[in-house]
Amino acid sequence: MMSVTVNSSMGGVGRWEPNSRGRLQAAALTLFAERGFDQTTTAEIAARAGVTERTFFRHFADKREVLFGGHEELRHRIVAAVAEAPVPAGPLDAVMAGLESAAGMLGQFPRELSWRRQTVIASNPELRERELAKLADYAAAVAAVLRDRGVKDPAAGLAAEVGMTVMRVALERWAGGADGRPLVDVMHDCMSEMSAVTAAARPGYGPSNS
Amino acid sequence: MMSVTVNSSMGGVGRWEPNSRGRLQAAALTLFAERGFDQTTTAEIAARAGVTERTFFRHFADKREVLFGGHEELRHRIVAAVAEAPVPAGPLDAVMAGLESAAGMLGQFPRELSWRRQTVIASNPELRERELAKLADYAAAVAAVLRDRGVKDPAAGLAAEVGMTVMRVALERWAGGADGRPLVDVMHDCMSEMSAVTAAARPGYGPSNS
Repeated sequence: MMSVTVNSSMGGVGRWEPNSRGRLQAAALTLFAERGFDQTTTAEIAARAGVTERTFFRHFADKREVLFGGHEELRHRIVAAVAEAPVPAGPLDAVMAGLESAAGMLGQFPRELSWRRQTVIASNPELRERELAKLADYAAAVAAVLRDRGVKDPAAGLAAEVGMTVMRVALERWAGGADGRPLVDVMHDCMSEMSAVTAAARPGYGPSNS
Repeated sequence: MMSVTVNSSMGGVGRWEPNSRGRLQAAALTLFAERGFDQTTTAEIAARAGVTERTFFRHFADKREVLFGGHEELRHRIVAAVAEAPVPAGPLDAVMAGLESAAGMLGQFPRELSWRRQTVIASNPELRERELAKLADYAAAVAAVLRDRGVKDPAAGLAAEVGMTVMRVALERWAGGADGRPLVDVMHDCMSEMSAVTAAARPGYGPSNS
């Protein structure tokens, strides 16, 4: 009936297939956007997807998991790619390898559903705090890997944070349209823009004279 | 008895004075660090500070406000300084003006209490999420001001996020010791490090060839 074992760990992020799970994701994100997250029940999501509520719970522990499932896998992919980046790569290049890996997963999710997911999260303080906490966890994990690669602090922490910022901003822009370009390209653009922004700063923020 | 009207909006951040309010902050942060935030009562905080519980509530709405009070003022200072930076200043220079203003306020808080505050927040997921949400709010407000200054997206959002990252990392380093240097210098160092990290990246993250 359902071919969902393969991506059963995938929730709000990552691959999407037009099977029960995929239909449930689409239905949930549409209802969350229409009515608000708190006002949507799992029964309504199941009905909209044309499946039973029992089927919903076969795929998701609760309606939150529609938004946040798959994050462990995403984190794992990012961390693994940073760890495996060629050794001469500088901290930001290693981080970029992690973002490319993330784009390979996140870019498979339908852009419009990604947009709805972000809109729902942005409009609900509790969901927003959870999303920020996830990104902070990714950043901490990436910083730890960078330290293992010999990067000192604060460079390790800063590079990791910059990476997560670029990922989030790129994801927003990609989901919002971005001229239909692939997510990985939007991530590269944002990283270039980040370099340009910091390069254009007044040179040498050394100790102040004050 | 108490001369606290002047800084009654200041809580976990900013100026500190050895009056009732200051003693309550010190007592609360020490108890939070010793026992955990959830395990500490306002009665215990008041007792440790040598004041009545009623005095506690004259200064703070609840024990959370010991950690998060003053954030509105901090946000206002940052935003105002970014808005008032000289017009030729690039986005990151304007953001740096905001950080300097923040350092002027945050750097007056005793370093050791700032360290305890950060430790308590880091060890409590709910407090951590709240702290991240505050920083995200600052970043959004700074990005809006940068747009008013004519900075385009994604540069505006990226510069704002970089600024909040630098502020947070610098605050951690300052509170952790940083060779006893003033907070504003530590912020400048972190901003320099940020520029170095991004400058050392592989040039030209343009569209990928994949």
